[in-house]
Amino acid sequence: MQDISTAPSWLAEEELSWVRERVPLVCVDAVPVRLDHLGQIEKVGLLLRALPDETVSRAIVTGRILRGETVREALWRHLTKDLGPDCDPQLPASITPFTVVEYFPDPHRTGFHDPRQHMVSLAYVVPVNGECRPAEDALDFAWLTVEEVTSRAVATEMSQGHDRVIRHALASCRQLP
Amino acid sequence: MQDISTAPSWLAEEELSWVRERVPLVCVDAVPVRLDHLGQIEKVGLLLRALPDETVSRAIVTGRILRGETVREALWRHLTKDLGPDCDPQLPASITPFTVVEYFPDPHRTGFHDPRQHMVSLAYVVPVNGECRPAEDALDFAWLTVEEVTSRAVATEMSQGHDRVIRHALASCRQLP
Amino acid sequence: MQDISTAPSWLAEEELSWVRERVPLVCVDAVPVRLDHLGQIEKVGLLLRALPDETVSRAIVTGRILRGETVREALWRHLTKDLGPDCDPQLPASITPFTVVEYFPDPHRTGFHDPRQHMVSLAYVVPVNGECRPAEDALDFAWLTVEEVTSRAVATEMSQGHDRVIRHALASCRQLP
Amino acid sequence: MQDISTAPSWLAEEELSWVRERVPLVCVDAVPVRLDHLGQIEKVGLLLRALPDETVSRAIVTGRILRGETVREALWRHLTKDLGPDCDPQLPASITPFTVVEYFPDPHRTGFHDPRQHMVSLAYVVPVNGECRPAEDALDFAWLTVEEVTSRAVATEMSQGHDRVIRHALASCRQLP
Repeated sequence: MQDISTAPSWLAEEELSWVRERVPLVCVDAVPVRLDHLGQIEKVGLLLRALPDETVSRAIVTGRILRGETVREALWRHLTKDLGPDCDPQLPASITPFTVVEYFPDPHRTGFHDPRQHMVSLAYVVPVNGECRPAEDALDFAWLTVEEVTSRAVATEMSQGHDRVIRHALASCRQLP
Repeated sequence: MQDISTAPSWLAEEELSWVRERVPLVCVDAVPVRLDHLGQIEKVGLLLRALPDETVSRAIVTGRILRGETVREALWRHLTKDLGPDCDPQLPASITPFTVVEYFPDPHRTGFHDPRQHMVSLAYVVPVNGECRPAEDALDFAWLTVEEVTSRAVATEMSQGHDRVIRHALASCRQLP
Repeated sequence: MQDISTAPSWLAEEELSWVRERVPLVCVDAVPVRLDHLGQIEKVGLLLRALPDETVSRAIVTGRILRGETVREALWRHLTKDLGPDCDPQLPASITPFTVVEYFPDPHRTGFHDPRQHMVSLAYVVPVNGECRPAEDALDFAWLTVEEVTSRAVATEMSQGHDRVIRHALASCRQLP
Repeated sequence: MQDISTAPSWLAEEELSWVRERVPLVCVDAVPVRLDHLGQIEKVGLLLRALPDETVSRAIVTGRILRGETVREALWRHLTKDLGPDCDPQLPASITPFTVVEYFPDPHRTGFHDPRQHMVSLAYVVPVNGECRPAEDALDFAWLTVEEVTSRAVATEMSQGHDRVIRHALASCRQLP
């Protein structure tokens, strides 16, 4: 049985398709990080997940804001769903995102790309203090150093422009190499 | 033939109603300002407009982001539509909003209120250098001082929490009295 | 014996006076907060301290950045000094302040005032998870609700414009009433 | 008689040396940009200047905040001094910097480096609409595209970590390639 207690309004797949053709969807992107006691990023967390086109790729946490749900509730829901119920995300005091990522079906529009839909995503860096276990459709979860996560090798394992979202996230923390 | 898949798309009123019941809509809020040469706010611009419930109120510029439209294009469209084609808005170099305003049909959820829909709005302070003439459904447009716009008298002329959006905008510029 | 290991360079009082007459000093302001699990501010912490002019007032945490010290090290040092070694401050991932507060000897310059010096202060909201015990020159420390801390009664107990710094801090978290 | 206590004050070179050994100096960094009508960065401006060690390098606009001077006044002064009196800088409505750059004599401390001093610099992206003519100690001024300014070739022409400041500036505008 599906837990609907935190789901203000789920859509059937055909309803969602209908909506996707008419309006941009609003989402949250979360870059999970481990901080030292001074707030500096030690590690960046990445999911290994299967994409709709059946390829596998590394990804940040991302998902829709549901009708009736606040941005903070959506962040909490997606983080604890993707990283497991014990991940202990430290949602920031400010709701202002470090940037707004605009995903378009056309990959050349902004460089951020989603073949299925136009998404406007509020992007946050979220310290995660607890134990992370990949859940749902994620195959794995790994903590990488700043050097690793900005390497060409790891960048090529990401799609949709998530490697660029991460570099923008690091820059917002003045930790872009 | 033109590719219409990424062209901004208008919705019929009944389609919009259907969408509003299923997903949050993503919008932009713009607080028009006049700056002095050092970037300090001299005036805040307010529209006088008729609301759907037939009351009249002062308001900031606000409106939906259409499918296929970037945040910047939506800001430009709503500003030049509401303030007239000669208003000359100075869109900011950063697309990061000063805050995210969440309007709910329930007025007690966040204090920001829209009886018709759940809206997630990216809020910007936008310097406007040109001549402003209220257009479309706006009845008037006026420049107010920071003192006037934060007065109790003007606050009571605003609805949906726009007076609070303005105070948050002024704070983002360190000009909250 | 004094621990000098984290003190890059203290100044004798007469040296500091000499410097104060010549350059602005760079400082950090920290507004301590308690957050709920969604990141919303539940309480704001205020010190009760004696000012140089022998009056008593409520205040946020504030202090100079020393030569050779990073902004993060200064934040950590002042928070653990003023709130006690067990306060467990959660320094933010981003070093970008929510605003820059400019204190001038002239109270009319910016509205932020320090009779002794021109200070440029980087202002942060810092979640504090541990036990707080006022240390050094602080007489007391208290957690107040957002309503209390923005009340006229509490505002009049603050000096230097700290009540206004707090309202700007709340606005950066979209929690200004 | 004029009150000189709050008037910006210049220091003799030996006084400045004395101060530099005792406190961090507070500065502004400004990345000049040309924007299109939607606020997107078209060009980034760089000075060609002689450094104290007699090498030549490309640089952003940077300089000290004087005692008695506001951040905005310092930005205006340095921009109109370095880019000429007709450069017409558009100072932003918000005084919050996109990041804080900490320059240390030790090049390994933060990666931002000044052999002469510890500087805490508030960094801004500033649209410049007018004609730019390099002044004072600058040898030249040039507008570069985002691709050029983030190229390895141009990066090697910069010192002190200015290439990294520029990449952080572009990221704050979501324009990091």
